[in-house]
Amino acid sequence: MPTPTQIVTSHRPDLAPYETLYQHFHAHPELSNQESETAATISSHLAALSPAFTIHPHIGGHGLAAVLSNGSSSSSGPTVLLRADMDALPVEEATGLPYASRRRMRDAEGNEKPVMHACGHDVHVTALLAAAELLVRVRGEWSGTVVLCFQPAEERGTGAQAMVDGGLYERVGGLPDVVLGGHVMPNRAGTISLRKNLMASSADSLHITLHGRGSHASQPHRSIDPVVMAASAVTRLQTIVSREVAPDDLAVVTVGSIVGGDAENVIPGSAVMKVDTRAINASTRERVLKSVERIVRAECEASGALKEPEFRKTREFPLMFNDEKIVETLTGAFAEHFQELPHHFARDGPRLGGSEDFAILGTSINRPCCFWVYGGTDPEVWDKLEKEGKLDELPINHSPLFAPVLQPTLKVAVDAYALGALTYLVKQSDFL
Amino acid sequence: MPTPTQIVTSHRPDLAPYETLYQHFHAHPELSNQESETAATISSHLAALSPAFTIHPHIGGHGLAAVLSNGSSSSSGPTVLLRADMDALPVEEATGLPYASRRRMRDAEGNEKPVMHACGHDVHVTALLAAAELLVRVRGEWSGTVVLCFQPAEERGTGAQAMVDGGLYERVGGLPDVVLGGHVMPNRAGTISLRKNLMASSADSLHITLHGRGSHASQPHRSIDPVVMAASAVTRLQTIVSREVAPDDLAVVTVGSIVGGDAENVIPGSAVMKVDTRAINASTRERVLKSVERIVRAECEASGALKEPEFRKTREFPLMFNDEKIVETLTGAFAEHFQELPHHFARDGPRLGGSEDFAILGTSINRPCCFWVYGGTDPEVWDKLEKEGKLDELPINHSPLFAPVLQPTLKVAVDAYALGALTYLVKQSDFL
Amino acid sequence: MPTPTQIVTSHRPDLAPYETLYQHFHAHPELSNQESETAATISSHLAALSPAFTIHPHIGGHGLAAVLSNGSSSSSGPTVLLRADMDALPVEEATGLPYASRRRMRDAEGNEKPVMHACGHDVHVTALLAAAELLVRVRGEWSGTVVLCFQPAEERGTGAQAMVDGGLYERVGGLPDVVLGGHVMPNRAGTISLRKNLMASSADSLHITLHGRGSHASQPHRSIDPVVMAASAVTRLQTIVSREVAPDDLAVVTVGSIVGGDAENVIPGSAVMKVDTRAINASTRERVLKSVERIVRAECEASGALKEPEFRKTREFPLMFNDEKIVETLTGAFAEHFQELPHHFARDGPRLGGSEDFAILGTSINRPCCFWVYGGTDPEVWDKLEKEGKLDELPINHSPLFAPVLQPTLKVAVDAYALGALTYLVKQSDFL
Amino acid sequence: MPTPTQIVTSHRPDLAPYETLYQHFHAHPELSNQESETAATISSHLAALSPAFTIHPHIGGHGLAAVLSNGSSSSSGPTVLLRADMDALPVEEATGLPYASRRRMRDAEGNEKPVMHACGHDVHVTALLAAAELLVRVRGEWSGTVVLCFQPAEERGTGAQAMVDGGLYERVGGLPDVVLGGHVMPNRAGTISLRKNLMASSADSLHITLHGRGSHASQPHRSIDPVVMAASAVTRLQTIVSREVAPDDLAVVTVGSIVGGDAENVIPGSAVMKVDTRAINASTRERVLKSVERIVRAECEASGALKEPEFRKTREFPLMFNDEKIVETLTGAFAEHFQELPHHFARDGPRLGGSEDFAILGTSINRPCCFWVYGGTDPEVWDKLEKEGKLDELPINHSPLFAPVLQPTLKVAVDAYALGALTYLVKQSDFL
Repeated sequence: MPTPTQIVTSHRPDLAPYETLYQHFHAHPELSNQESETAATISSHLAALSPAFTIHPHIGGHGLAAVLSNGSSSSSGPTVLLRADMDALPVEEATGLPYASRRRMRDAEGNEKPVMHACGHDVHVTALLAAAELLVRVRGEWSGTVVLCFQPAEERGTGAQAMVDGGLYERVGGLPDVVLGGHVMPNRAGTISLRKNLMASSADSLHITLHGRGSHASQPHRSIDPVVMAASAVTRLQTIVSREVAPDDLAVVTVGSIVGGDAENVIPGSAVMKVDTRAINASTRERVLKSVERIVRAECEASGALKEPEFRKTREFPLMFNDEKIVETLTGAFAEHFQELPHHFARDGPRLGGSEDFAILGTSINRPCCFWVYGGTDPEVWDKLEKEGKLDELPINHSPLFAPVLQPTLKVAVDAYALGALTYLVKQSDFL
Repeated sequence: MPTPTQIVTSHRPDLAPYETLYQHFHAHPELSNQESETAATISSHLAALSPAFTIHPHIGGHGLAAVLSNGSSSSSGPTVLLRADMDALPVEEATGLPYASRRRMRDAEGNEKPVMHACGHDVHVTALLAAAELLVRVRGEWSGTVVLCFQPAEERGTGAQAMVDGGLYERVGGLPDVVLGGHVMPNRAGTISLRKNLMASSADSLHITLHGRGSHASQPHRSIDPVVMAASAVTRLQTIVSREVAPDDLAVVTVGSIVGGDAENVIPGSAVMKVDTRAINASTRERVLKSVERIVRAECEASGALKEPEFRKTREFPLMFNDEKIVETLTGAFAEHFQELPHHFARDGPRLGGSEDFAILGTSINRPCCFWVYGGTDPEVWDKLEKEGKLDELPINHSPLFAPVLQPTLKVAVDAYALGALTYLVKQSDFL
Repeated sequence: MPTPTQIVTSHRPDLAPYETLYQHFHAHPELSNQESETAATISSHLAALSPAFTIHPHIGGHGLAAVLSNGSSSSSGPTVLLRADMDALPVEEATGLPYASRRRMRDAEGNEKPVMHACGHDVHVTALLAAAELLVRVRGEWSGTVVLCFQPAEERGTGAQAMVDGGLYERVGGLPDVVLGGHVMPNRAGTISLRKNLMASSADSLHITLHGRGSHASQPHRSIDPVVMAASAVTRLQTIVSREVAPDDLAVVTVGSIVGGDAENVIPGSAVMKVDTRAINASTRERVLKSVERIVRAECEASGALKEPEFRKTREFPLMFNDEKIVETLTGAFAEHFQELPHHFARDGPRLGGSEDFAILGTSINRPCCFWVYGGTDPEVWDKLEKEGKLDELPINHSPLFAPVLQPTLKVAVDAYALGALTYLVKQSDFL
Repeated sequence: MPTPTQIVTSHRPDLAPYETLYQHFHAHPELSNQESETAATISSHLAALSPAFTIHPHIGGHGLAAVLSNGSSSSSGPTVLLRADMDALPVEEATGLPYASRRRMRDAEGNEKPVMHACGHDVHVTALLAAAELLVRVRGEWSGTVVLCFQPAEERGTGAQAMVDGGLYERVGGLPDVVLGGHVMPNRAGTISLRKNLMASSADSLHITLHGRGSHASQPHRSIDPVVMAASAVTRLQTIVSREVAPDDLAVVTVGSIVGGDAENVIPGSAVMKVDTRAINASTRERVLKSVERIVRAECEASGALKEPEFRKTREFPLMFNDEKIVETLTGAFAEHFQELPHHFARDGPRLGGSEDFAILGTSINRPCCFWVYGGTDPEVWDKLEKEGKLDELPINHSPLFAPVLQPTLKVAVDAYALGALTYLVKQSDFL
């Protein structure tokens, strides 16, 4: 009987059309909660691939789930959920690629924004479609159920929960046994890695409005200067990480945006800060958020503000933990499959640089999940920069220059999804 | 022979149509260097008043000068320039007045902005037109020349210089003997004041770009955080006034605008500060500007910035000094005219709160100038707030709530222009 | 009948012994409230000068008053109080003068400190003794009473009040009609000046203890770092002057001392700031002090301090106003006396750079007072630095390098005291 | 043949006299490089224990090494170095213990300081002496050489290097095969732990002088305020950890001391900061030190300082790594010995909280080293605080309240030294 890696290697579909599809997705990104075209393209593609897919659109917004069952009954094997996220970012693409995005869309506040797949979700979607083709081709080799989950609004941290709340598991007819996903990163293309336990930090974002009192620039004593207030708050927020968090713990407090005033000669009445925090411990996460609020309130008091600052939570990503047992299981499969150059599998890989709402697909139903990461940087570029000690200069996710090299990135992404599923579904499997 | 004050009192035109005209100007404000409608309205109005006005449009942009001569030759008397500025501000009106502005225009950078006469230039223009009507009515009482100067782009600090450079004095056929102007302020309506020597501080505005390096919010070590850089600069800039300027000197350093980043989870690549500085001594002015640059550069170095910050001067207003002799001359006339309640004339009034480019009309041709200020706050409101110790709460120039009460504001403004001219032009005058 | 200036010019004692006495005082300075030797020397000197002095020692500590009456009864003329302050500063002298101080004393907290007459009180004391000799010599020329008041603890802002509270006016037998004093400054020696109204700003000093929580330097998360707390407070305190005080008002907020921690590798449990504030308006003074407290409290909250900061007022100097009538009276006398080079009298001189408790001697008993200032900088040095635009480099009061040139400094100081008294006391006087 | 743990258990000397000795050391602490009494007491004690100890005093200051050889020749077995550090800290003891220190000594700068064994070196010294007694008692059971190394000046980070430079290994007649040591920590008494690889961060301390220009507090414009300069530097230094160090790396930048000025009303001419930095990667360590310098220099430039700041390195502790093989070897021995309650051995224990120069004893001669840590907190206190979630409140090393409970702390410390040596020296050993 063939092993998962043998199946994948023998039956991987031609990826050339998928490269074209990738370029299409890349050139047509959509902001969070506006992924209608992307979802429609996915739906058409799956329908064209095989009538075997039962397609459930419009779950939690533009979310889409497709079910591919095998065996006489769904009880004949395990259920594996494979997830890809679909949304893009309000970033103005600067890659200069022939298929670079030139799109602009209105965001939730009605402001027109440039849009770019600067986080690689176009890779995820394309790879999951190619893996779907592979899985449907080799239906004879496995039994059980695959749920392809195309999630919206990952960048807002709301899409996974929205799909769960929108009836994902009722729609697909049951709970998965394992929940799997992956992400392209600025690592060397060809590499893929797993790690146990903590896989991604939490992320919490705040929109903070500081209220001062406006005045003419020449009359500061009639103002309560919100620019000085905000600047003091930004400066003081640095002390959370430098003084309040244990040196061997991890936390990040970033003020990603500060906006106050427009004209030189007018002191504005308010200023806005957008703050992003990360943590890898629940207690630290809570402490950091409390400290952000305490410091901002105190800086408003220091300025003699007459009105309290306003805090609005804008994003919330959970801590993501990889299930130990799944990691052990997949480590075997990945180690076998990705052992030959130009591929490489790392057993104790790094955490995800950013945060993810993927885990909600599992934790909300008490099912184990596992998330892997694979590289997207052209190996030649990587090797050159590594030799020069300049790997720090690589554009990372969310950069206007983020542009995964097509291959071997896509191939690794496809194989990982397919292997992840087949490891659990090939008939002799007794992993569960 | 009638005195100037007798002439003004007897021949002041009915102000009712001018109140309507004021409301028209207020409802149709135009941004600096875009004052075409205002200039056209002024031109039509003057043409309708009398054929005696020689109108010179399009001086230094939309600037307009109108000459009214008397006597057989221009040598038969002195020349007095009366100036009113025409431009409005990118402020969103919040007065709730029936004639409030709802206008939006594109500014010089192409961004759409709300527009409002938040600095009272509509009062100035209206009053100068009414004074023009008065002066043309009483031509028999005076000899010499009046130059009505309607100046654009005062808010940018460029309009006065632009009119001079655009040939103002060649167009009007000679240099004035005195250059006069005034401004409505949030003082009690009915009051007017003069002061010798320093009348307004200098003002210099800078647009400063701080260059960092962008990154994902979770990866601060890959960034050079321009938000922290800008916040540190804002904080540190406070020390110029608190430590570097002599306590009995005067300087203001205001960061009117700080803008960096857009999303919570992205550290931007740069940030922009707009800085406004004021001084009343040339050496302090120079020191303050040098210190702003020194501090900003040092804060960029503290952040390890790879690229120097960029400084662009956006506005530059000179120190404005009132000519002692004109002040003495006008003090006599104003004291006589404004002695009865509800009016009040103050001999040693306050400086202008803000800055002005008015003086350039005189200093550029080495002629003396004088600038007065008059109140626009409803006397009842003023008295109530004064009793409650809340005068600080009055909306000042540039506030979205700045709304001079129509009367007695307009009457004082008209009388001051007319008196200013007639004091020099009534036939027996030997002041010069 | 001779005028005061004629009397002074004709009867000024030989100043050579007083130069020697000055050097003695300079070499033997005493800290505030420890002026016992100085007071004893003064007492001996006066006793040796004439039995006519009634000496009252130990008033409000080491304060000393000496009364010299003339005429048959005290009702026969006015009473003039002349004040000199006696105390020195905890400053280590660096003048290199042959008579430089090498003294060290324990301060009120028991810490050994270097001591120096860095504020010129040795000039004041010496000059008042010489003036006393002059006044006793010319007793025939005047009638009334002179009260020589040698005040302790001016530097702490407590000496004047202590003398009043210690029964000064009961001891000397009545209230003075005018209260006069003067101060040596780093102006050109030979010059003296008066000004009406505001003569010196208020000064308020605070000792502020910030409570954090100590820890090992490697364990910041176990600490509440008082060094960061204090640094943030110092930084934020700059905004009082830069943002809260009207640009044309005056205030100073100086953190003269910040002390926290001792070892590199220990985060201390607390830090101490010593803050000095100045103002020239009572309302601004109050606002500034409130803002200091508000900001410091807020910065402690920003740090999450578990214990409130402690504020202790350490010094308090009132606003000092010169009585208009006295200024007019003395202006006549000083203008006549100091008209010839190398002397110069300025009618509208500068304010005192620092603050003074002198006025309490008058305000506490509702009697008018007047304070003049005279220069102590060697004219040659002054002229050279002035030419080079380096007057800012002159050592000012409280500098370890402050060293008034002996003459003409002392002569001007003596003459001013004597003239001040004689202007009121010479028999024909009808000034009061 | 008995195992090391059997030997230790059977032959451990009565610890009662050592408890008394500990109290003596605790009551008589000595500052770094002044450990003469401590060294003398150690020397007497060893001499009294047995003539078998060859004592080498005065190595690298007050350092002392004692050699105990066994077997016919030194080649008959391995050499084990056991290290205890002797110096105390300038901390004022606040434990209230009957044997609390009341000592005061002059430090290297001549300032009188309180002295306290606030880091537990008294435990180390006492335990090593007790272990020495044990080892000499059971000489029949082992062969090889024990070098007892009593090190001075650990707190300054200079003692280990000074002993090496002072000829330690020449004096003791050869290089050790393994270098062992341990430290008491605020963990639960009875527990002991080991860990592989990184055992302690580096530590680098700097003394930084910031040069401003002094002035009177009322004349800030004549100053270059070093208090504001230092405060800005402290604030800005927070950004190294918050922005420049990768979130999953570790660095600490602590300003343990800031001192500027003395009087409220004098702006001082300079200020001093003492900075302590920690890192666990060589490259981060270098980056942090460069950033400290860059930021401090930039803040001096921001203030317009006329003189560069001065940096003086005051302490330098290396990164400390535990040799993997030694850890494996000792893990076996410790796990066997400390398995029974109230003891507990942790295999993958925490890093040392602070830093250590211990490793220099090994790295300087290219020999492997290993360092363990054991608890000193009364188990009852520990359990109570743990239950209440208040373990953070435990006094840690360098706290004035740091007071290890006598037992089982001392017993664990003695056993660990003895076991460490015997594991290598018992005759059947083939570990090396």
